[in-house]
Amino acid sequence: MKVLWNQDIVEREQVKVDIEDRGYQYGDGIYEVIRVYDGHCYMLAEHMERLIASAKKIKLTLPYDAERIAENLKKMIAVEEINNGEIYMQITRGVYSPRNHQFPTAGTVQAVLTANAIPFERPLDMQQNGLSATVIPDQRWLHCDIKSLSLLGNLLSLDEAIEKGFDDALLHRDGFFTEASASNLWFVIDGKLYTHPDGPLVLPGITKIKVRQLCAELAISLVEEAVPISRLGEVQECFLTNSVWEIVPVVSIDGNLVGQGEKGPITARLQQAYIDAISK
Amino acid sequence: MKVLWNQDIVEREQVKVDIEDRGYQYGDGIYEVIRVYDGHCYMLAEHMERLIASAKKIKLTLPYDAERIAENLKKMIAVEEINNGEIYMQITRGVYSPRNHQFPTAGTVQAVLTANAIPFERPLDMQQNGLSATVIPDQRWLHCDIKSLSLLGNLLSLDEAIEKGFDDALLHRDGFFTEASASNLWFVIDGKLYTHPDGPLVLPGITKIKVRQLCAELAISLVEEAVPISRLGEVQECFLTNSVWEIVPVVSIDGNLVGQGEKGPITARLQQAYIDAISK
Repeated sequence: MKVLWNQDIVEREQVKVDIEDRGYQYGDGIYEVIRVYDGHCYMLAEHMERLIASAKKIKLTLPYDAERIAENLKKMIAVEEINNGEIYMQITRGVYSPRNHQFPTAGTVQAVLTANAIPFERPLDMQQNGLSATVIPDQRWLHCDIKSLSLLGNLLSLDEAIEKGFDDALLHRDGFFTEASASNLWFVIDGKLYTHPDGPLVLPGITKIKVRQLCAELAISLVEEAVPISRLGEVQECFLTNSVWEIVPVVSIDGNLVGQGEKGPITARLQQAYIDAISK
Repeated sequence: MKVLWNQDIVEREQVKVDIEDRGYQYGDGIYEVIRVYDGHCYMLAEHMERLIASAKKIKLTLPYDAERIAENLKKMIAVEEINNGEIYMQITRGVYSPRNHQFPTAGTVQAVLTANAIPFERPLDMQQNGLSATVIPDQRWLHCDIKSLSLLGNLLSLDEAIEKGFDDALLHRDGFFTEASASNLWFVIDGKLYTHPDGPLVLPGITKIKVRQLCAELAISLVEEAVPISRLGEVQECFLTNSVWEIVPVVSIDGNLVGQGEKGPITARLQQAYIDAISK
């Protein structure tokens, strides 16, 4: 497998990650996961914009400009002949020795970019039949808007759900739903679509941007407001969004069916509209 | 520099960290920082005990047993001829491909241990003259008892303090002090010593264990209770503890002197007792 390492496309084995890379020691870095359809990176500009925003929030200087990163990602998927797939890219603050919690002064450290791509086909079964989920407290930090490598909180949430026999976790902070363990979270209540507004408690999802546009086109009423867990009984539909899975229904929550326990009509309309939009 | 890499002591340059090491992609790992005095690892058993506890909390299987890890660390400081110094050791969950948030099934992944040691002498100036600090909200996750590699929250807290012109941050959660950006936090109020009790909001410090013992020996009244920030005006002394710095006074908070703005008497007694205990 060939990977992008800083500016070069090299064999994976050639990449040297240093033991004092701050990504390795501190989770001090950011990442993006980008979907590839028909050989093209989907919503690449939006991913790059979010990358720049994450970098700014942690004062990380990108190793080189975002346009060139985007070009190199395209080159990588061409070399790897990825038709439908996903790109994983991460950028760490770089190698700094001796280890020190303080952010190194700008100019004294060089960010390290690594990226690879793998084939991936739309998860049709999951999109059709949906997931089960459990509601648990959101125990992550208060900067969930940063797409950072410090992800252990997300991993532990997913693990807790799996341990309990569910596919994913729906997180709540102080009684209000935030997101799932690695997806934005949406509910249909009284015919309206709800999701947590952007801010420090949720990731500003790229798929969320598209769903917003689709809601406007399809005249679906979208309310960007946190849903209290006390309204769970009123939920008619529930789904998750992320760049890899697209739109995936949640059909049961803590063992109780959501609606009829199958993909709901608004979810289905958005799913189809999302797929249609990709090929436009 | 020679480092410990899994079971072997090798030249640092020989270590190969994989781009899909879950430590690199997720901060999915744990660490310890151990002080070396006169060629000996201080409170090594306690560090190993905490390592085991952290591993258990994230379901990480150590690469080999803790006794042998301890032996290898001793070997490493001997080879590197560290007299007074510090050991940094981290253990990640290992390499798993393709990247997947879910914890790999036990047995399908091999944890990766890396450790190095550097010389370090007691920071006398800091211990004598103390630090300035600022009080800011604790924006970290709710598993601060795990000594995990997902540390970006700690780094951002320190950076915020430095940006504001202070040496460190005193964090509060919902109005109660928790800890500093990388140290346990202690206050003297009305002649009694206070620190946050162990639990999910603070790291169970190794130095804290020793300070507890010293308080008993010196008949210093210790209260393990969270201090509300509203009591800041009553604070007579304040100090931080961690394995590297030992006991370091905080002499001003947000520009206001703590007590007389110099190391207080209880801090001084504990500092001296701590140093005395090392050579016992």
